[in-house]
Amino acid sequence: MSARNPVVRRNVALLMGGKLIGLLAVLMLVHWLTPETASAAEGEPDPLVTVNALNTVWVLVAAFLVFGMQVGFVMLEAGFARERESVNILVEGIADTCICGVLFWAIGFAFMFGEGNGFIGTHGFFLHGLPDTYGTTGVPLMAYWVFQFAFADTASTITSGAMVGRCGFVGDIVYSIGVTGFIYPIIGHWAWGPDGWLALRGFRDFAGSTVVHTIGGTISLAGALALGPRLGRVFRRDGGGPMPPHNLLLGAIGGLMLWFGWYGFNPGSTLSALDMQGIGRVSFNTTMAACTGGLGALFIGYARTRKWDLGLTVNGFLGGLVAITCPCYWVDAQGAFIIGLVAAPIVVGGLDLLEYLRIDDPIGAVPVHMFAGIWGTLSLGLFATGDFGLPGPLGADTSSVVTGLLYGGGAEQLIKQAYGVGSVAAATLGVSLVLMYSVKAIGLLRVDAEGELRGLDRHEHGLPAYSEFVIQPHGGFHGGGMSVPAPRPAPTAGDGGA
Amino acid sequence: MSARNPVVRRNVALLMGGKLIGLLAVLMLVHWLTPETASAAEGEPDPLVTVNALNTVWVLVAAFLVFGMQVGFVMLEAGFARERESVNILVEGIADTCICGVLFWAIGFAFMFGEGNGFIGTHGFFLHGLPDTYGTTGVPLMAYWVFQFAFADTASTITSGAMVGRCGFVGDIVYSIGVTGFIYPIIGHWAWGPDGWLALRGFRDFAGSTVVHTIGGTISLAGALALGPRLGRVFRRDGGGPMPPHNLLLGAIGGLMLWFGWYGFNPGSTLSALDMQGIGRVSFNTTMAACTGGLGALFIGYARTRKWDLGLTVNGFLGGLVAITCPCYWVDAQGAFIIGLVAAPIVVGGLDLLEYLRIDDPIGAVPVHMFAGIWGTLSLGLFATGDFGLPGPLGADTSSVVTGLLYGGGAEQLIKQAYGVGSVAAATLGVSLVLMYSVKAIGLLRVDAEGELRGLDRHEHGLPAYSEFVIQPHGGFHGGGMSVPAPRPAPTAGDGGA
Amino acid sequence: MSARNPVVRRNVALLMGGKLIGLLAVLMLVHWLTPETASAAEGEPDPLVTVNALNTVWVLVAAFLVFGMQVGFVMLEAGFARERESVNILVEGIADTCICGVLFWAIGFAFMFGEGNGFIGTHGFFLHGLPDTYGTTGVPLMAYWVFQFAFADTASTITSGAMVGRCGFVGDIVYSIGVTGFIYPIIGHWAWGPDGWLALRGFRDFAGSTVVHTIGGTISLAGALALGPRLGRVFRRDGGGPMPPHNLLLGAIGGLMLWFGWYGFNPGSTLSALDMQGIGRVSFNTTMAACTGGLGALFIGYARTRKWDLGLTVNGFLGGLVAITCPCYWVDAQGAFIIGLVAAPIVVGGLDLLEYLRIDDPIGAVPVHMFAGIWGTLSLGLFATGDFGLPGPLGADTSSVVTGLLYGGGAEQLIKQAYGVGSVAAATLGVSLVLMYSVKAIGLLRVDAEGELRGLDRHEHGLPAYSEFVIQPHGGFHGGGMSVPAPRPAPTAGDGGA
Repeated sequence: MSARNPVVRRNVALLMGGKLIGLLAVLMLVHWLTPETASAAEGEPDPLVTVNALNTVWVLVAAFLVFGMQVGFVMLEAGFARERESVNILVEGIADTCICGVLFWAIGFAFMFGEGNGFIGTHGFFLHGLPDTYGTTGVPLMAYWVFQFAFADTASTITSGAMVGRCGFVGDIVYSIGVTGFIYPIIGHWAWGPDGWLALRGFRDFAGSTVVHTIGGTISLAGALALGPRLGRVFRRDGGGPMPPHNLLLGAIGGLMLWFGWYGFNPGSTLSALDMQGIGRVSFNTTMAACTGGLGALFIGYARTRKWDLGLTVNGFLGGLVAITCPCYWVDAQGAFIIGLVAAPIVVGGLDLLEYLRIDDPIGAVPVHMFAGIWGTLSLGLFATGDFGLPGPLGADTSSVVTGLLYGGGAEQLIKQAYGVGSVAAATLGVSLVLMYSVKAIGLLRVDAEGELRGLDRHEHGLPAYSEFVIQPHGGFHGGGMSVPAPRPAPTAGDGGA
Repeated sequence: MSARNPVVRRNVALLMGGKLIGLLAVLMLVHWLTPETASAAEGEPDPLVTVNALNTVWVLVAAFLVFGMQVGFVMLEAGFARERESVNILVEGIADTCICGVLFWAIGFAFMFGEGNGFIGTHGFFLHGLPDTYGTTGVPLMAYWVFQFAFADTASTITSGAMVGRCGFVGDIVYSIGVTGFIYPIIGHWAWGPDGWLALRGFRDFAGSTVVHTIGGTISLAGALALGPRLGRVFRRDGGGPMPPHNLLLGAIGGLMLWFGWYGFNPGSTLSALDMQGIGRVSFNTTMAACTGGLGALFIGYARTRKWDLGLTVNGFLGGLVAITCPCYWVDAQGAFIIGLVAAPIVVGGLDLLEYLRIDDPIGAVPVHMFAGIWGTLSLGLFATGDFGLPGPLGADTSSVVTGLLYGGGAEQLIKQAYGVGSVAAATLGVSLVLMYSVKAIGLLRVDAEGELRGLDRHEHGLPAYSEFVIQPHGGFHGGGMSVPAPRPAPTAGDGGA
Repeated sequence: MSARNPVVRRNVALLMGGKLIGLLAVLMLVHWLTPETASAAEGEPDPLVTVNALNTVWVLVAAFLVFGMQVGFVMLEAGFARERESVNILVEGIADTCICGVLFWAIGFAFMFGEGNGFIGTHGFFLHGLPDTYGTTGVPLMAYWVFQFAFADTASTITSGAMVGRCGFVGDIVYSIGVTGFIYPIIGHWAWGPDGWLALRGFRDFAGSTVVHTIGGTISLAGALALGPRLGRVFRRDGGGPMPPHNLLLGAIGGLMLWFGWYGFNPGSTLSALDMQGIGRVSFNTTMAACTGGLGALFIGYARTRKWDLGLTVNGFLGGLVAITCPCYWVDAQGAFIIGLVAAPIVVGGLDLLEYLRIDDPIGAVPVHMFAGIWGTLSLGLFATGDFGLPGPLGADTSSVVTGLLYGGGAEQLIKQAYGVGSVAAATLGVSLVLMYSVKAIGLLRVDAEGELRGLDRHEHGLPAYSEFVIQPHGGFHGGGMSVPAPRPAPTAGDGGA
């Protein structure tokens, strides 16, 4: 505002020759008006700075919630695993987080968000040479890094999900470096980089059904393929079924913690708090899809086994959350309702498919993250309402709305989505198979049979999870968990009456 | 700024007798002032929009914390229950959340917050036809829905508390539909609806001691009455006592998670961040009442049994939190101190009363939520300081202060509070007894004796909570937990020395 | 505002030709300008109020996260302890929190933040007589109290860490009153009080490496010294080693919860959200130091025992978090990387030192909080970049930058830091030894041998943690946990194969 003062003074000069009083009046008015605006510039907060600070608070609080998902992941994975491999899951989760922090600072952020070409970012290693503020909503670079670190860490943790129980720890470190430092950020650049080739072709992934979940779930699948199943794991067509969770409460509570943290994942991805309607809508849609995903899996499980299956219900609402992650900004309540509901049979069918293919995925990482992630990415092309564009610096930007097939937008966006998630899944599967089989080739991927039977916890980590509890492992027990319609043996303990 | 007017007027007096130049000056000033405001409207954020966005961030973060209370509730309930019924608690908690999400979107929000009459809202089914923004603080409808969904979900989860261990799962689904879709939102409308008859009569309930906790606790009581006690539950006057928690650590950690989530429940209920003093005061009072409630129960327990009782202490601070939930905005530190402290004997006495009445409430839901909720609602009529009105769009609105009996306000507000909470509790008890006995009449409320003795987890859900641990259930063991002054048998395991 | 322009112009047209008219124009302008600013004051939010509200939201959300650390602490301590003493840890954690709430309101806040002299605050008991708003960033007193209460509670909880398993509960209450009501706030006043003598000498501690962690860890050391080791605890030089954690998963998950809560601890300490770059930098540095601390301890543990030690890794990242707590605002990414990395050998060496000195610190509270806290405090004098001053009301205040030895600032700040943390540690050790030995002298510090061998849970609290599980305590078992290179006995249970 004070920039206008010279102009005011020029105009004032035109008044020369009039009676002094008019001039005096003007000068005095200017005097009384000018300090007002000047003092506003000096002593009062700049409104735009306030907005940027609000956006920063929003993104950081969301980042903290996303980090909190690590708590949920290790609980979910450890609880759904056997006792003998649960400490291993904790060490892996923590080590992966620490490795991710260092690598995403050194190279990952540059590969993913740095300028470069359509396939890889080539600027910003160690965050050097990047502007202090990221993007259009005024969020400082380091705050944005923390948010994106938490996302990268999520992808990294998903990876370990299907590899539980037989992967050597050194192998885990090696492949984690590959995932966090290279695969996730480079392929992620295609969709989220400033000049990513999929982004330029109109592919949209609001909070990462493809970028985080499909990438993470696909690497997990590659790991499970390279590893083979755990010793003693008998599949359903061979008369067995999934090994039962050693601590079902821990796993289910971890699932609820993930739902809690997802409220940072999706709503925070606006990077803007000023887009109030947007963050409200994203929060609503996230809730709705989780609810219908959970209900869907609960009833599917009951229809198959006449039991209300806890593990399946948890994976159902997680599938709903994964699916809504891509389209959450652009769909309405009805869309979210259906997207979550459809995720349920996809997760259940995915579990069946892996069982049929004799792929051992102890916690269901592939169906929940890869399959539901693909569904969610496609669903945008079906359910985008055509009312919403992108979050902008001063609220929603409605100049770039997207409309799905079922809302009269034709198949255009659906094709873009299919093209994008297909490219990402294919590329991820290819490079991660190379990665996993390379680690296998140097003998680091799988522990020896003795160590695996003894359990990774004692073999690799030297201590059991519960040193004072009497444990009776179901070494050869099959048939429990996640809605397998096989006959169940009677529980072996704790079944007494009054 | 208006303070400058006298000076301006003095200067203006100097202008007497000037010619056209004065006019020119004025026109030019108008010219130079006009684009200033116009450019502010185009390129800079609207200050009111910024405030509304800040309020939205506040309400959404609070909503996420309230959702996090679900993690606390399932931990608390499962930990305080027996092993055989702990998985059931998790499935119920998750299923109730999912059902609540769908129903509170379809009908609950309309019944509760839609316009209608004093007894029920009749507009806004599926949120259709409601304005994009709710209330006076600029919070978008969908953000406000997420906040209120988390509240409704809390009421729903409280309901299952006294029904642990013997309620069939189909029965749970049926009564949950009744609670979340009808009882909670319709009776809640009376106090919080735009034209609720209790609200219009001056009844106040800031964050829901009555609306959430008394309603939830009262339905829980109706359920416990309709169900009867668990098989093998012997009451104190018959030589027994509460069944011991199967995982006391899990339960107590869940209690602390609830305290954590309560910081969303109470402070978020301002719906305004601009009311800074209000959110600070509410946070402070919430802390203080929890502290004195916990200390009170700790010492009461010690006085009775010479043991420092963990379960009782947890229920003590939860009672303090429930009690302060209604008056937290209108009382000062001394008030919060006493309100929390008095909640302790109410919770302990309530546990005794239920024990005496042979009502089996495995986790103490009725004393903590119903009894302490009634106390908290009444306490506003005693301790309101007369300094605080209601949160307003631009900070606190002091035009509607409320003063309690002990602060010189007479019995007026106390009578309103008693009238309100009495009406709510009586109506809730009536309709929920009808609901519960109806479900019982169709044979869905209670599982058969065989299933109950085997445990709901294996009977209804097909898997135990801890499949590899050796469990030794206290089938006929009585006397543990929550400050029962009966003689305690020696623990059966884990008591060895060095 | 622009809506008024036509009216202004219409009025202006009436002025043509008259002499008096110029005056009228000015008067009218004054008239039309005055309501504009007046209506701004009435109907629009004051920009500074908005900023203060944003700062308040930031500080309160941070306070809630810091409170959430209590969940992490009790999980960490209980999980790393033996089964027989785990309930005791929960009761202590909750009781200390409740005592802290009451005392920090009554006297603690006044001692710490009230005006007085360099050694103690003497104003503000029960928060009486303090202004409604604290400090320069507009945060209400009661919101600031909640934030500082959560800090005081953290110091209080750390204290119990090295005293696990043999401290009587009455003794715990007595020393907790001393810690929360007197030692922490009075010595904390030296560094953070408005006229603290260390603050005035240029000692800096951004979020409390000294004030919270060194004080808490030092009191813990005094307690361990006064108590002596648990019965049956054989140290490594005597052929034993640390007792194994009874629930390693619970402990490690608690550690991750602490990391989550630390995002309130450090970033919230700006007390300002408008200092966007500051809160981003603090969040980043906190992440980086945790990552390198965890990785450092993981690899040190492997180098010593060929096992990837979970307990040690958790204590490693906690050590990194403690260390970065003091310098997090003033260092860059490289600094945070090294500060965290160096914390790892300090924690491991500290565990060795205590083992060598035959001091029984069951969860590693002294190395993690005292030793890493001292290192972090000193590290500011080495790594402060000279770019950052202090958070100010309208963003960062760069008038008071601090530069460390390695960044060309000479040894000045390092000497101040050494002087400060040395004074605090020495004074804390002195007074807390007096406190602990006084409690010991009146016979309240340690339970009798029979009670200790039976376990505090049954002795003091009347109930075991896991009433239905079969527990097989390692009464005389030594050698497990936290990277002790002693030979490990084979696990006693749960080691079966397929």
